[in-house]
Amino acid sequence: MGEAELAGATGGLVLPEPTLADAARAALDAKTKPPGSLGRLEDLAVRIACARGTVEPPHLAPVVVVAAGDHGIAREGVSAYPQAVTGQMLGAFATGGAAVAVLCRAAGARLVVVDAGVVAPPKVDGVLDLSLGPGTRNAVDEPAMERAVAAEGIVRGHALGRRLVAEGAGAVALGEMGIGNTTVAAALACALLGCPPEAACGRGTGLDDAGLARKVTVVGRMLAARRPDPRDPLGVLAAVGGFELAVLAGVALGAARGRAVVLVDGFISTVAALVAVRLAPALRGYLVASHRSPEPGHALVLAELGLDPLLELELRLGEGSGAALALPLLGAARAILVEMATFDQAGVTDAGR
Amino acid sequence: MGEAELAGATGGLVLPEPTLADAARAALDAKTKPPGSLGRLEDLAVRIACARGTVEPPHLAPVVVVAAGDHGIAREGVSAYPQAVTGQMLGAFATGGAAVAVLCRAAGARLVVVDAGVVAPPKVDGVLDLSLGPGTRNAVDEPAMERAVAAEGIVRGHALGRRLVAEGAGAVALGEMGIGNTTVAAALACALLGCPPEAACGRGTGLDDAGLARKVTVVGRMLAARRPDPRDPLGVLAAVGGFELAVLAGVALGAARGRAVVLVDGFISTVAALVAVRLAPALRGYLVASHRSPEPGHALVLAELGLDPLLELELRLGEGSGAALALPLLGAARAILVEMATFDQAGVTDAGR
Repeated sequence: MGEAELAGATGGLVLPEPTLADAARAALDAKTKPPGSLGRLEDLAVRIACARGTVEPPHLAPVVVVAAGDHGIAREGVSAYPQAVTGQMLGAFATGGAAVAVLCRAAGARLVVVDAGVVAPPKVDGVLDLSLGPGTRNAVDEPAMERAVAAEGIVRGHALGRRLVAEGAGAVALGEMGIGNTTVAAALACALLGCPPEAACGRGTGLDDAGLARKVTVVGRMLAARRPDPRDPLGVLAAVGGFELAVLAGVALGAARGRAVVLVDGFISTVAALVAVRLAPALRGYLVASHRSPEPGHALVLAELGLDPLLELELRLGEGSGAALALPLLGAARAILVEMATFDQAGVTDAGR
Repeated sequence: MGEAELAGATGGLVLPEPTLADAARAALDAKTKPPGSLGRLEDLAVRIACARGTVEPPHLAPVVVVAAGDHGIAREGVSAYPQAVTGQMLGAFATGGAAVAVLCRAAGARLVVVDAGVVAPPKVDGVLDLSLGPGTRNAVDEPAMERAVAAEGIVRGHALGRRLVAEGAGAVALGEMGIGNTTVAAALACALLGCPPEAACGRGTGLDDAGLARKVTVVGRMLAARRPDPRDPLGVLAAVGGFELAVLAGVALGAARGRAVVLVDGFISTVAALVAVRLAPALRGYLVASHRSPEPGHALVLAELGLDPLLELELRLGEGSGAALALPLLGAARAILVEMATFDQAGVTDAGR
C-alpha cells in the first residue's frame, strides 16, 4: 500500500501514436460516403483506433464499472436522500433492477459492481469488495482519508482496470454512486481547477434552492479547512474524498494502460478522470465523454480535459447511466471503421474521380 | 392506383390516448431513481408507450427502411456526385457494405432496401422493387410526377409500413438515398412552410459556395415554375418530387397505423414525414427525431413538427444513418420503462418518504 505502488499505477502510460490517427482518417476517407459525412462518429472512430493501437479494432466488449462509496460530508445535509441509500443502491446494481443494470443489458455491456467503501454493504452476491472503509470522514472536520488510503484506492482500481482489459474489454466506462458525492466532486473540481464553489455546485439529484445554497457553503468550508494544494492531486483526493473517486481514477489508469477506451459518465466520474489525468497526463488520449450533465461543474471539467460529450439528454442520475447509453455509439464507430466497404470494394463512383 | 386508395392510407390514423402518457410518467416516477433524472430518455419512453398503446411495450424489433429514387432536377448540377451513384448505393445497401447497413447490424436492426424509382437499378438480390419509374422529371420544366403517381407511391409505402409492423416491428426508421434529393427536400419544405430557398438550402453531402448558390437558384426556379399550393400536400409532392419521399411518407403512415414508433433521420426523411403529417396530422404523435442535421432546412421542419432530435453529431450522410445510430436509445428507453425495479421492489428508501 502507498505511494510507491501508486507510482507503478501511474507510470508507463503513454499517449497513443499520432500516426494511428492519420491512418484511421485515411481508412475512413476511402469508405463509400462523402469525406467527413459521419461527423463526430468519425472522430470517435479515430479516437478508438488510437486508444486500441490499431485501425481495425476488434469488438469493444464494453464493461461498465460502477463504484459506490459513502461520504462523511453527507452529515452536513448536502443531499435529498439519506446515506443508507448508497448501500441499498449498490444492492440494486448487483441484483439488476437499477437503471445502470438495465441500460447495460440493453447495450450488451458487462456490469461490474464495486464496493469502494460504503457504510452499510448490501447482503447480496455480485458486489466486488474493494472497500477502503465504512465511508470517508467529514472533510469539514478532518481529511476525508489518509494519503495512503487514497493511494491504495487508486492501486486497487488500477488492478481492476488492467484485469478487465485482460479479460477482453476494449472499452471501460466509469459509473458511481454515493450520497453526497456531487459535493465531493465539486470540492475536487474547485481545488484542481481553482474555481469558486458557486461555479461547480449544482442541484445533484434533487436539491432545492436552500439545499444548493447549503452545498455551496459546505464546499467553501471543506476547501477553507483543508486548503488542498492543486499541484498535489493525491493530496487533494485524500483531503476531500472520496473512496469511489479514488477507485475510479485507478480503473481509468489501468484500463488505459491496457489500451482500452475509457468512457466517463457525468460530473463525478469525469472528476475522477481529471484526478487521474493530473497523476498521468497521457490518460487524456484514452478518454471519451458520454454525455453533458446539467451539473454546472461538469462543463468546467470537460473543458479542462478537452472533451466534447456525445450525448446531451439532461441526465442527472449518475450510476454510469449516460455512459451505458453512449456505448452503442462507440460500437457503431468501430463498426464503421472496420466493416464499411470502400468505394472500390463497393463499385461506387467517388466524387471528382 | 390513385386518390381513393390514398384516402385509405391516410384515414383511420388517430392520436395516441393521452391517458397513456400519464400512466407511463407514473410508472417512471416509481422506479429507483430521482423523478425525471433520466431526462429526455424518460420523455422518449413516454412517447414509445403512447405510440405502442401500452406502458409495457415489448422489444421494439426495429426496422430501417432505406428508399432510393432519382431526380430529374439532378440535371441542373445540384450535387457533387453523378446520378449513377443512386443505383450504385442501392446495391451497396443490399450487399451490406454501406454505412446504414453496417449501422443496422451494430444496432441489431433489420434493414429493408427499397427501389422507389432509380434510373439504373443494381443487379443484386435484396432490393424491394416499389419503383415508380426511372427517376422523376425535371421539376424546373414540368411536374416531377403525375398526381396519381405520387398517390401510388404513398399507397405502396403505406402497405410496406403496415406489413413491417405485422411482421413484428415496433419501431420503423426512415432512410433515403437519391442524388439531388436535398434540393427536392428544400423545395418541398419551402412550398409547405412558405420559407425562401435561402433558408432551406444547405451544402448537402458536399457542395461548395458556387454549388450552394446554384442550388438556391434551382429551388427558386422549381417553385416559380410549379407554384405548388401549400394546402395540397399531394400536389406539392407531385410538383417537385420525389419518388423516395412519396414512398417514405407512406411507410410513416402505415407504420403509425400499426402503432409503431416512426423514427426520422435527417432533412429529407423529416420532410417526407412532414408531407405525411399534412395528409394525416395524427402522425405527429408517433414521430421521433433521431439527429439534428447541419442542413439549415432541417431545423425549420423539425420545429414545424415539434420534434427535438436525440443526437447532434454533425451527420450529413443520410441513408438512415442517424436513425440507425439513435435506435439503441429507443431500446434503452423501452427497457427503463419495462425492466427497471421500483423503490418498493428494490427495497430502496425514496426521498421524502
